[in-house]
Amino acid sequence: MKFLPSHESDLRELLQWRRDVRNFSTREIEPEVLAKLEASIDLAPSVGNSRPWRIVRVSDEENRQSVIRCFEQQNLAAACDYKDETQTEYLALKLAGLKDAPVHLAFFTEPDPEEGRGLGRRTMPETLVYSTIMAIHTFWLYSRALNVGVGWVSILDPEEIKDILDVDNNWQLTAYLCVGYPKHHDDKPELHRKGWQHDQSAVWIDR
Amino acid sequence: MKFLPSHESDLRELLQWRRDVRNFSTREIEPEVLAKLEASIDLAPSVGNSRPWRIVRVSDEENRQSVIRCFEQQNLAAACDYKDETQTEYLALKLAGLKDAPVHLAFFTEPDPEEGRGLGRRTMPETLVYSTIMAIHTFWLYSRALNVGVGWVSILDPEEIKDILDVDNNWQLTAYLCVGYPKHHDDKPELHRKGWQHDQSAVWIDR
Repeated sequence: MKFLPSHESDLRELLQWRRDVRNFSTREIEPEVLAKLEASIDLAPSVGNSRPWRIVRVSDEENRQSVIRCFEQQNLAAACDYKDETQTEYLALKLAGLKDAPVHLAFFTEPDPEEGRGLGRRTMPETLVYSTIMAIHTFWLYSRALNVGVGWVSILDPEEIKDILDVDNNWQLTAYLCVGYPKHHDDKPELHRKGWQHDQSAVWIDR
Repeated sequence: MKFLPSHESDLRELLQWRRDVRNFSTREIEPEVLAKLEASIDLAPSVGNSRPWRIVRVSDEENRQSVIRCFEQQNLAAACDYKDETQTEYLALKLAGLKDAPVHLAFFTEPDPEEGRGLGRRTMPETLVYSTIMAIHTFWLYSRALNVGVGWVSILDPEEIKDILDVDNNWQLTAYLCVGYPKHHDDKPELHRKGWQHDQSAVWIDR
């Protein structure tokens, strides 16, 4: 396979326009689009080809509401850790689109899968969770290519989410994603628009 | 930004043909190609826009040789954990291309960056390392788009690598990458070709 300049420019556009979306339309995602997004995950890399990701579609309304309450509690607790103007700034940020997003997905990692037979994770077992992260990033980019938005909600208590979703006790919550069509097409990142954190260049050193 | 079907098909090709490359040509990567790869990392997502990745280019020959020795020791130790035919199978795998790859990059994570002001990582501080993983995956895909190969070496002792590279003691080794032009263009994944681990479908459940 020889890649062409169009592969580079298309990927660059996807990377430049990928967003952590927090404003969703309530429009449902078409089943054929969801099927493509699900299939994209099978293309992600994993240590020893172990594919340790376990994915929960959260569609039960009571479960969704419990997750939203968990976010609200943890977001308030986070706000309380900031003082004065920083607290005001924090409270003005919209950090999740859980209520409107038509699809909620919880990504877990199986910490000891048979697949892969342990290869590549003897000294760095964390590479299992890292594999799940690459599956999530694959899903995120593929969503963007289909004009679907993804928002990653990390302001949650992982153990509480496990209880709500009643999953295998060994699984580790890796990420909770909101998925849906973005409400705005000009979504400059919230943290830029509101001055929370502008871009810093990567640190590179030589050895 | 409205994405077109070509964005989807180009991304799918990149994902399908991304490989963990272990057979590199010793041909140098052109500086302008390396510069594009470095720039791609600045497009990766990170929790609170914290950009916690710290990247070390390992070009000193003595350091490269020390890393290779570290891999060889850990690879032998891993082989010793397998028995009988599985051990023979393991020893027949080529798991790294450290000797030939012209570029070695060590990715570290700063565990408490000022950038981002703690946002999004109060209950899940591991999202910092997850950000570095997405930067690595971005670099990996962008490399593929430029016909450059990446191989991730996780059969290493992270503390030993930190000692060899003499970096900030707080930094956490997240990944060690070999980068270069692939030697073969038909590189079916090594673990498939040699029957170590074939693909399994992702596990999806509903809640």
